[in-house]
Amino acid sequence: MAAEIVNPRSDSDGTTDEELFDPAFALHRGGKMAVQATVPMRDRDDLSLAYTPGVAKVCSAIAEQPELVHDYTWKSQVVAVVTDGSAVLGLGDIGPEASLPVMEGKAILFKQFGGVDAVPIALDCRDVDEIVDTVARLAPSFGGINLEDISAPRCFEIERRLQERVDIPIFHDDQHGTAVVTLAALRNAAQLTGRPIGGLRAVISGAGAAGVAIAKILVEAGIGDVAVCDRKGIVSAERADLTDVKRDLAGFTNKAGLTGSLEQALDGADVFIGVSGGTVPESAVATMAKDAMIFAMANPNPEIHPDVAHKYAAVVATGRSDFPNQINNVLAFPGIFAGALQVRASRITEGMKLAAAEALAAVVADELSADRVIPSPFDERVAPAVTAAVAAAARAEGVARR
Amino acid sequence: MAAEIVNPRSDSDGTTDEELFDPAFALHRGGKMAVQATVPMRDRDDLSLAYTPGVAKVCSAIAEQPELVHDYTWKSQVVAVVTDGSAVLGLGDIGPEASLPVMEGKAILFKQFGGVDAVPIALDCRDVDEIVDTVARLAPSFGGINLEDISAPRCFEIERRLQERVDIPIFHDDQHGTAVVTLAALRNAAQLTGRPIGGLRAVISGAGAAGVAIAKILVEAGIGDVAVCDRKGIVSAERADLTDVKRDLAGFTNKAGLTGSLEQALDGADVFIGVSGGTVPESAVATMAKDAMIFAMANPNPEIHPDVAHKYAAVVATGRSDFPNQINNVLAFPGIFAGALQVRASRITEGMKLAAAEALAAVVADELSADRVIPSPFDERVAPAVTAAVAAAARAEGVARR
Repeated sequence: MAAEIVNPRSDSDGTTDEELFDPAFALHRGGKMAVQATVPMRDRDDLSLAYTPGVAKVCSAIAEQPELVHDYTWKSQVVAVVTDGSAVLGLGDIGPEASLPVMEGKAILFKQFGGVDAVPIALDCRDVDEIVDTVARLAPSFGGINLEDISAPRCFEIERRLQERVDIPIFHDDQHGTAVVTLAALRNAAQLTGRPIGGLRAVISGAGAAGVAIAKILVEAGIGDVAVCDRKGIVSAERADLTDVKRDLAGFTNKAGLTGSLEQALDGADVFIGVSGGTVPESAVATMAKDAMIFAMANPNPEIHPDVAHKYAAVVATGRSDFPNQINNVLAFPGIFAGALQVRASRITEGMKLAAAEALAAVVADELSADRVIPSPFDERVAPAVTAAVAAAARAEGVARR
Repeated sequence: MAAEIVNPRSDSDGTTDEELFDPAFALHRGGKMAVQATVPMRDRDDLSLAYTPGVAKVCSAIAEQPELVHDYTWKSQVVAVVTDGSAVLGLGDIGPEASLPVMEGKAILFKQFGGVDAVPIALDCRDVDEIVDTVARLAPSFGGINLEDISAPRCFEIERRLQERVDIPIFHDDQHGTAVVTLAALRNAAQLTGRPIGGLRAVISGAGAAGVAIAKILVEAGIGDVAVCDRKGIVSAERADLTDVKRDLAGFTNKAGLTGSLEQALDGADVFIGVSGGTVPESAVATMAKDAMIFAMANPNPEIHPDVAHKYAAVVATGRSDFPNQINNVLAFPGIFAGALQVRASRITEGMKLAAAEALAAVVADELSADRVIPSPFDERVAPAVTAAVAAAARAEGVARR
């Protein structure tokens, strides 16, 4: 295993049979990443350039002209993947140490798919003020911050307050990465079935990080109407039990003023987007409009199994790699950060996210089919297309520094 | 330049002639380090092991058995190189961004000389409580913390309070790295000149981070007597102007009860250790004992120029790479952390530092000469010897977790 190479010190004392024989444990032994020098360090001359005394002039130059930090350090190539371990995958609140394998995985995806260096930072704190203060103090070392697996509704406030404090992009991938890929798939699905998105009515099951962000981007993209449902049903202004986030949501969604259950919302709907887990009864799916689009993204168990969904829908997508049309964030975050870093963006705007979704959709625009409304995660055209679109949008929106 | 390879996005718009033609700037363009995946990420199968769904079992296993984080992540291979940019090289307080080239240089030295992965973390805060809180919250992601270029006396309190809060090693290299290498050189110099260190009287010029740490380790190592001098002269219990740190220093140094100036302290002294800058008059050097040992470590200008020192001393060392006997921290910190990480030490004890100094001294024990009381930074025997000694000492002192 490659991991062994960088960790000759790892041993297998007291490992369980599962650890010994499960390929996932074997692959993870010693971790999944390493740091490498990109300059020579062979002799005294190398040392005197890369370290003292040579480094001192570079430090002085940055002290005089702060923007030079982007030219002469790795700052504008490196992203911190920050979590508090409070909402990790489907595992929930497992704490910072146990979340590290996911953060390392995310870091190597940044590198593999976007050429972006990334460092896992799992924080031993939960208080919103503490997380905001801590990440803001780290900001000088990084070109961007990818927030990961932080539970809602804390994630919304953390992202907003951090972006107010620092001049590098703050991006909560569980929200915006998912939203960008979903919009891209929906654009292509609408294209394939010959309907303008302005005429579509969508129902989102789940009002957490992903659901809220998807609702926002769909509205920004000009979809006809969006109704978001939580466990208690359709989020509508009438409800007295709404949190601030959901009250805000009620303000810009559900133009139709629907009330009641998810099942009621689905009656005649064109689009179902599941980011909730749970199961939608087939009887409700059957009431959706003709040529429906069903994106059942819960992992490992989609809210509507593809076999059922295909009975009623023209296009079916899931979060799983073993079905067609996988809604996978890796299609978005590497290129979004690569584009933002390329122009040293101070933030990632809504316009940059919309541009990312359009570029992602465009990659397969000429190859559309019911099983191909979104590219494969391994489609090498994706990251360059998203990177270029995001960099251009950053310049157009005036948040680029070069 | 290799740096270009990892940063094709770097450009030279608006760079000065110095930046264009100075090899240090050329080498630093795009930074000096990168992250690499150590596991394959070629296809869907790789992705499903290194990321979802495969990663979930590894996370769950760590959640159940926290110590597994050392086996299945890079935690126990990676050190954070943490600074606030308040005391960078000879440049002083240049802030976090401008300190990054030094922290990156330190990080690649960790990798090159110790095989330890390291990540630069430059903090945008100065308050001791804020630095302690911030670093403690980062601790779950790292196997150790190397504090760097943090001004005294804040550095002492920060290190102490951090080590009380976290169960990974906290090591302020400006203190302890320097102290370990100085002790190693002194042991060999004493050996070479046929004197037991118990009979030596040393004078340290400088009561900052390095001076205090050197005084402590020399006393622990059993040197006869140590007098520490600050700008006002010999640190002695009589003085009313002492800070807490210097009062503590007065308590375990200066057994002879000397008072007065540095020059007075040098009269008859066997050892001079300069970590202060400034210049010592030759007239004072001339009063030192026969076969004196002069370690004038200020950079770039030693407190006593080697040409002067050689007139009176049997052994001369400096901090410079262009003279023999360079007291260079790179001889210590890579092996010290490699040894501590190898056994997953919870801290770096005084015994581990003494063991590191002995192992470092022993590397050249059979090749001793006046120009060779300490190995070259590029002596490949150094890091393995220090690593093994520190790991063994950690086990002996009961701070090893494996």
